[in-house]
Formats: sequence, C-alpha cells, structure tokens
Amino acid sequence: MNILIDCMGGDNAPEAVVAGVKKASKEFGEKITLLGLEQKISPLVRKYGIENAEIINTSDNISAGENALHAIKSKRDSSMVVGLSMLRQGKGDAFVSAGNTGALIGAATLFARRIKGVKRIALSPIMPTKHGATILIDAGANVDYNPEFLAQFAIMGEVYMKKVHDVAEPRIGLLNVGSEDGKGHAAARETFALLKNMPINFVGNIEARDLAEHACDVLVTDGFTGNVLLKTLEGVASMMNFYLKQAINLNPSTKFAGILLKDALTEMQARVDYSQYGGAPVLGANGTVIKAHGSSSPEAFYHAIRQAIAFHKTGVNAEISRVFAS
Amino acid sequence: MNILIDCMGGDNAPEAVVAGVKKASKEFGEKITLLGLEQKISPLVRKYGIENAEIINTSDNISAGENALHAIKSKRDSSMVVGLSMLRQGKGDAFVSAGNTGALIGAATLFARRIKGVKRIALSPIMPTKHGATILIDAGANVDYNPEFLAQFAIMGEVYMKKVHDVAEPRIGLLNVGSEDGKGHAAARETFALLKNMPINFVGNIEARDLAEHACDVLVTDGFTGNVLLKTLEGVASMMNFYLKQAINLNPSTKFAGILLKDALTEMQARVDYSQYGGAPVLGANGTVIKAHGSSSPEAFYHAIRQAIAFHKTGVNAEISRVFAS
Repeated sequence: MNILIDCMGGDNAPEAVVAGVKKASKEFGEKITLLGLEQKISPLVRKYGIENAEIINTSDNISAGENALHAIKSKRDSSMVVGLSMLRQGKGDAFVSAGNTGALIGAATLFARRIKGVKRIALSPIMPTKHGATILIDAGANVDYNPEFLAQFAIMGEVYMKKVHDVAEPRIGLLNVGSEDGKGHAAARETFALLKNMPINFVGNIEARDLAEHACDVLVTDGFTGNVLLKTLEGVASMMNFYLKQAINLNPSTKFAGILLKDALTEMQARVDYSQYGGAPVLGANGTVIKAHGSSSPEAFYHAIRQAIAFHKTGVNAEISRVFAS
Repeated sequence: MNILIDCMGGDNAPEAVVAGVKKASKEFGEKITLLGLEQKISPLVRKYGIENAEIINTSDNISAGENALHAIKSKRDSSMVVGLSMLRQGKGDAFVSAGNTGALIGAATLFARRIKGVKRIALSPIMPTKHGATILIDAGANVDYNPEFLAQFAIMGEVYMKKVHDVAEPRIGLLNVGSEDGKGHAAARETFALLKNMPINFVGNIEARDLAEHACDVLVTDGFTGNVLLKTLEGVASMMNFYLKQAINLNPSTKFAGILLKDALTEMQARVDYSQYGGAPVLGANGTVIKAHGSSSPEAFYHAIRQAIAFHKTGVNAEISRVFAS
C-alpha cells in the first residue's frame, strides 16, 4: 500500500513525523509518500536515511490555531488538502496527519468525502482502560449532532473493533451521567432508544468512570462530550505524572526508589497515554484517515502509521460501506 | 452552629459517617445532629464516644440506585428529606450527606428551596489541579439547561471562591472544546456571549486538559458535561493507581521501591482525590448543603463537615442572596 504522510502537522513537525516514518518504513516496508515543504523534508529524509519514500512538495501550511474552515478553503496547496484529494483519487491508500484536528475533519469531509450513507465523519481515538482498548466515538468532530448520527457512530465503531481489534461482538455503550435506563438529557434518552432497537450488542448507559473498567468496547457520544472526556484524561494523566514526580523528588530515599521504578513507570505511562495506541481513526471518511496527536513523538507517529496499515488491511471501510449499503 | 448529618447515605454508611463526625466534632466542637435509624446510629455514637450530638430518628431510607424524584416524594421520613426540611425551618445551619446525588439535589430544591433569584441549584465539586483548587459548576444537577443558568453558576462559583478560598478576583472559565472564541455548540457560544458581558473576570473558553494547569478558579459548564468530566477524573485516577500498583509489584526491586515511596504516594493520591477536598457544595440552595462522595471514607466525610463549616461561617449564601437581589 501507499501511505500518504502529512509532514507539516503537529507541534514537532516535520522532524518528529519523519523520524516516525523512518521507524515505520523500516518495519513495515510499505510505500510512503511525504507531503509538505520539500526544502524542509528532503534534508530530514537524507538524515534519517529513508528509502522508498516519494516527496510531494506543497507550499501552503495550515497551523494548529487556524480557523479550520477558512484554512482548508483558502490553502489548496497545503499538505492536508493535497493529501486528502490524493486519497479520493486513489493515489494513496491512507492519510496520516498530526495537524489541526478541525481542518482534518473538514478536509476529510470536503476532499476525501464520506462513505455513502454516512451522515457525519467522527474522530474516534482508542482509549486505554485497565483491561483492554475502547474506541470513543465521537471525540470532537461533531459538537452539533442529532441522535441518528450517534446511532451511525455505534455501527462504525462496532466494525472497527471487530476488524482491527478482533472483538467478536463488540459491547456498545452510550456515555451518560448514570448507568440506569432513562438517564441524561433528551438527546441522550433518544439515542438510547435508537441503540436499543438496533441489531448490536448494546450494553446500555455507561458512566465516564466505568470506561477505565473496560465497561464496553465502543463508547458512543457526541463530539462535545467526547472531547471533554478525552482532554480530561490528558489533563489528569499529566497531573498525576506531575505529582508522581514530586513524590519521587521528595528526598534521597524516594529518589532512589524512582531509579528502581524507572522502567516500570515508563511502561505505565505508555499504557495510559492514549496517543501511544496509535492516534485516532477518522471514521466514515472515504479512505483510511488517521489523526495522530498534535504533540506526537516519533514513537507516537510510528504507531499512527501502524494503525493506518491495520485499518486499511483489515478492510474497515469496505465493511462500513457494505453495512451502510444494506 | 448546628450541623445536620445524613447518617444513612453513602456506600459505607452509617459507620464511616459517624467515624468522620467523631473527628470533626473533636476538632471543631460544633453542635452535631445525626439523622437516621436510631437503633443503628446509637451504638456507633457510643462506640466512637461522640459527645454534643443529638440523634433524630428517621425511618425511611433512600438508597443510591433509587429513582430520585420518586424517593423524595414518597419517603418523607428519610434522613435526607427531614434534614433538608429542618434546614429550611432554621433548625440547623448546614446539611451534609453522602447519599443519592439526584435525591439530594431534588430534595434541596423541594425542601430547602432555592435562594431568591437563583434559577437552578448546582452541584459544585472542588477539583484538584497542579497549582490550586478550581470549583466545577455544574457537575450533574442540571443535564437540561439554558445559558442563563450557566451565567448564574458563574456568579455563585465566583462568590464561593472569593469567600471560602480567598481568591480576590476569581478567574471564570467556560468549559469548551477549544480555547479560541467561537468554539463549541450553539449553547456554549451563547453562554460565552453572556459571560463576556458580565462584570466578572471572564477568561474565556477552557479546554478540559487545562483544568489540570489551574487555568481558572471557576469552571462553568452544564450538568451533563461536568458530570462526565468529574467521573473521567475518577476513572483515570483509578486506572493510574491500578497501573502504578502493577509497576510496583513487578519484581523484588520495584517492590522495595514501593515501600520507600509509600508515604509520598499516599500523599499524592490524596491530592488527586477530589473527595478529599471536602465534597461538593450544592450552590444555590437556601442553606449550606454539602454532598460528600458516595464512597466517602471517615476522612473524606470529616473534610465535608470541615467544608460545611467554612461555607457557613464565611457567609457564602448571604453574599449570593445579596448579589442576586441586586
């Protein structure tokens, strides 16, 4: 397959992106197409000694804080717009970007387009829990929504967990403020009624704290709430690491303990860091689109590429198309 | 002052409640009125040797999973309904409960009533951050809302942080999916416009991850979103403790490190555990009402009582009344 890489997106672009590509390219041997400012990318490609990579020069750059809609409409020669247009034209099999999330969702909708029958594209990060992975859908693509969108998200999430995570009958949960039936605002109750009547393994309302217990495989919510959940996880993880560091730096004896625990703690942080799970699939787009975290390290970007390959090779989109056609 | 205590609420009631009362009673010396099944409470009062406590026998019990509205309407002789009615009648100065949250909010509205001018009562836990406390308002009382409620929450939260936490000009933030102006769904944008035009120190939209950085002193949101944030914090903290335990139990050397770090880690967990901050004030009720966490330990319940005293003695409600009258 040919993987299109947005080299200009993310806080550490383009170097972290190219470094991640290096690792992925060595391990998986797939064809890589790098999109971005050639004069910046070429030296890095030489530095990291990447073979089998083509560079496509793009002159515009969409930055993180930019107004998404304006950016994608005015910056036609940006790595994002060019990459997603190539995806649409069959000139690539997957697109991976750590760039502006809103622009990526907008450009995926406008240039890669939606799978037939899909009403809205959703950002769907894979969340860590104590006992396995859960896909959160939607985590920010749709702050305005109606219950029908969420019912579609349930189906797309189900296909993803079946195909990529080999879960035979994914448990679908609805994020809510209590686990009993009848909880939540009107839209939540309406979504509950829709999900209950679908031929899926619907396990009912799930409270945010039960995500950590792996209460479901697919956690359905609207983009506003999902975004708050995702960013709360980031904030709490960062706060706990901050206090853990303080605890370790307390005195010579705790510092010594920190040295003994170093590897185990690094392993622990990797488990809780959802960006390590490989970024967020953009479900519903016509083509494999993976959003890597904005602050992606080379390691995180490597995982995003790994996930793009799994997404493509397990035929997630073919199955979503099939289900929505029927 | 006379503090009314719901002895029947919470996972560890009545023993954890009475044990928490013991510590608070010894330290603060305020009058305590214990509400609940006398035959269960009397032996505990003797066991813990609590003086200056009166017991009021109540025969009904509202449990955690019960339908809130039905419970408070049918169980008039429950500790919750009796306690909040006493608050209304001036027979007590504060009410502290670890019981059913929905029932507490409903009963506070029905029996303690709202402060004049306040449209909705809000559940307002004090959240830990890296650098200080932030009040989250609302965390679950109002899943259906309109922007005007949220504007009132901003004012109530401001008064609380001024009075109880001595913050001269509390920074008010609106929980949103991005920090730029214009982010979020229609209700969020409308709330933003209201807050921007109020005579408060409004610092704009706040992303959930920036709560950990203490980006504001008062974080305003609707009850659905706030509840998800609160419970995500609980879940992530529990997940990190789970993985930390795994890291420590890895081998003899990490186990030894765990022993060296034990006190520092206990201190760290207490900092991240928001229930240690003293439970959640129920703002807008006519009287001091504090919701202790359902799984409150004696220590957590003690902190909830401590907070009830601070709430009452700093005159939070008198100031809210004054502001809403003007």
